[in-house]
This record gives sequence, structure tokens and C-alpha cells, in this order.
Amino acid sequence: MTGWLVIAGLGPGDDCLVTHEVTAALADASDVVGYSPYVQRVPDRPGLNRHETDNREELDRARHALEMAAEDKRVVVVSSGDPGVFAMAAAVFEAVEAGPESWRTLDIRVLPGVTAMLAAAARAGAPLGHDFCAINLSDNLKPWELIERRLRLAVEADFAIALYNPRSKARPEGFVRALDLLREACEPDRVLVFARAVSTPEEDLRVVRLANATPDMADMRTVVLIGSSATRIIPRDGMPFVYTPRTVSL
Amino acid sequence: MTGWLVIAGLGPGDDCLVTHEVTAALADASDVVGYSPYVQRVPDRPGLNRHETDNREELDRARHALEMAAEDKRVVVVSSGDPGVFAMAAAVFEAVEAGPESWRTLDIRVLPGVTAMLAAAARAGAPLGHDFCAINLSDNLKPWELIERRLRLAVEADFAIALYNPRSKARPEGFVRALDLLREACEPDRVLVFARAVSTPEEDLRVVRLANATPDMADMRTVVLIGSSATRIIPRDGMPFVYTPRTVSL
Repeated sequence: MTGWLVIAGLGPGDDCLVTHEVTAALADASDVVGYSPYVQRVPDRPGLNRHETDNREELDRARHALEMAAEDKRVVVVSSGDPGVFAMAAAVFEAVEAGPESWRTLDIRVLPGVTAMLAAAARAGAPLGHDFCAINLSDNLKPWELIERRLRLAVEADFAIALYNPRSKARPEGFVRALDLLREACEPDRVLVFARAVSTPEEDLRVVRLANATPDMADMRTVVLIGSSATRIIPRDGMPFVYTPRTVSL
Repeated sequence: MTGWLVIAGLGPGDDCLVTHEVTAALADASDVVGYSPYVQRVPDRPGLNRHETDNREELDRARHALEMAAEDKRVVVVSSGDPGVFAMAAAVFEAVEAGPESWRTLDIRVLPGVTAMLAAAARAGAPLGHDFCAINLSDNLKPWELIERRLRLAVEADFAIALYNPRSKARPEGFVRALDLLREACEPDRVLVFARAVSTPEEDLRVVRLANATPDMADMRTVVLIGSSATRIIPRDGMPFVYTPRTVSL
């Protein structure tokens, strides 16, 4: 059997944030599968077959990729960021578990990448410099009650928090409720970073205090970083630095 | 002013997990600063000055790097993994805040990388495929009570959990207590991944149920991933796949 399936993270946007390992896998692939904008990031070359799909078809896409690997193709499923963080890796393993027994013998590898919250944090300074958590605010695949519960407990634990997919056009009310919850649970000068489309031409970074945060500061291309109670702003000309100190007392 | 300071993530170990951006910064540097094993990963070349320091001197190292950047040097502070996750970026910004006002005008950039938990997760499958948190188990810089409190709340939130620095030779008892806490709070078949030195020649991966986990499975080079209640094992010949489904109900 010569086929393989790689689930590769392309990082947040700029090709300079791709790892050498992912570049090599793409150069060796016969087939690239993924959501159109990510597939379009892979340079065209003779012998490379491209399979662009819609965003909502993760499981179909995963099955298709597995079928091709079983047919001895060299398949790369492309994700933005890291494939293991709210991306394609989990969908592939769901398909493996539900699929034919033979899929379990395939050569399947996940190639990690720079996930959006780490790229966003790097731009702001080091807001995730202490214990932190990542919460997907989309309620497509889980009940809103669970999201709210996790957010409350994350604040109680005094984690820095990264919110993925904070606000879709279809469901803008989730982030409104998340902000309300934060205002109840945190001090008004809690530090927030709204990091939109980091490392792309549309990059936009805003550092605000919770009291000044508004729902329209986020969309689906934004990662919202919420500092812990210890997170600090270093003012300077231009964009300030934001960081969470390594030392914490009770 | 032509000097700059870059805090760069070298990834978990293998050079193929470095981003192109970090490779370019290292090629352009006049000075590389960091903990010896990380500095030694940077290829030698004429004109590159290397400053290797001990592991416990983060703040001194940060100040030294800032001083050199202020002297118009092109300085890269190297971290393993991602510099913003329990690594050098927070130390540099601590030094900036406490240092001379002029340091705030320096060209300081953080270049993200593949942090240990994402490399570990990729090797195992997709155990962090849903909401998750990262907790540093070292009590060098924070009280143990806080670690325990965060761990309890993380379990209550049903996050997948990544534990960094689980076990030092000097303080082996922390991870023993963490395992005890997990046994109180989680079902005995909770999935754990012990990922040691991922992507290095010493890489070792173990997938176990909580009931079978023992403290000696971790050391300071291990990242321990604790699944959420939904995390699943896909058995197969050899190492099983571990993943956390994207869909969760209450």
C-alpha cells in the first residue's frame, strides 16, 4: 500500500507561517482536499489534483479523502491554522471510526501548524503567557448552554481565554451573550484583544478594555483573546504590548 | 534605529516543524540568545553571535537581548515550541515593562511556532479537537493551590487538558497529586496521552486509561493530554488513534 492521508495545518494565512514539514507534504501529494480558500493557497503544479469543497461538508470531505488514500493516492487534507484545533483532524477520525475496518490500517498523519490564537497572541505580545483555554463559540455542533458553562468556569479558573468563531452572520447573538457574561464575571478593565485575519492583508488588531468592547468588534475571521485578571497592557506609541506575567499569586 | 528583537518559536524539536518565517529571521540575525539546547539548534555561520544561558535565567536573558537590540543588533531569542506558551515571550515583555522607557520603542516581534501540546495531539490523532485548556504544572512561579483549583475547574468544564512541565526531578509530587485529583473527578476510563519529546529521537507516545496511568509515565520532557469525557480511542494494530468528536451534547 503506497497511499497515505495527511491532515496538514496551513497556519493562519501567510505562507511564511507554514512549517517545512507541511510544505514538503504538499510537494509530494497527488491530491489536495479542503475548503476552497485553503485549497487555493496550495500552488498549482502538474500532477496535483485539487478537490475544493464547501465549508459545511467536513465529514463528506473526510470520507472522500480516506477513499482516495485507500486507492493508493497521496492525499493532503488542508486546514487553516492547526488541523487539531477546531478543524479537519477530528472530522477525519470520526470518519475513520464510522468507516470500514480497512481505513484503520491506512497511513494517516496529522501535521501540526500555527493555530489562530497563537498567531493572534504573538501579534499582541504574550497574552497567553500563562494558563489558558480555547473555546469555540459556534453552537453549530454543541448546545449554547455548554459554551456558557465553559466560559463561566474558565473565568472562575482565571484562565486567559481564546474564543474561536465568535460571531457568524447567521448567529450574531452568541457573542453578545458572551460579552454580557464577561461583564458580569470580570472587572471592567479586563484586557481583550480582537485579532482579525492575522497575517493576511485584512489583518486588524484591537486592544480594548472590557468596558469598551462591543459585539461588532468580532466576526467569523476574528479570534478574541480575553486576558486573565493578571494580563497587562504596556502603553507605547502605536499598538501597545499585551502580556500575561509568568508569576501569579493567589 | 536598525536593531530589532524577535522572540521565535523553534517548535517541539525537529527542524521540519519550524516555520519559514522563523528560518528567515534566524538567517538574518546577528545574535541568537536562549537556553543552550535551543541555541544549539541554530546552524552556525560567520557573523552569528551565540549567547547560551541556563534555563533558570529567563529575565536576565530577556534584558540582555533587549540591551543588544537597543545597540542596533538583530537579536533572536529562541524558545522551543511557541514563544507565547510557557516560554520566553512573557519574560521579554516583563523586562520591557520594568526596563527603561526607550525599550518600548524597540522593534519587538513574536514569531509563533508549533507548541508542544499541538505536536503531541497531532501524533495521537485529534485529542484536542474540541474545547481545551493548557495548564503549566510547575509551581516555580505560582502556588500549587492555584494549579489544583484550575485543574478541578477544567475537569468540571469538561475541557480536554494539556499539562506542561508535569514532573520535575526536584518536585515529583505535583503530578502525583494531579493524578489523584483526576481519579477523584473523572471516570476511570478517561483517556490520557503521555507524549514525550515529540519529533525528537527520544520521542515516546503512550495512550492509557486513567485507571492505568502512573506518575512515572511523565517527566519534564512530557506533555500529558487528558481527554474530555467525550474523547475516544480507535483501536487498530499498533498505536491507536485518539480523538475528541466535534459534536457534543449536554
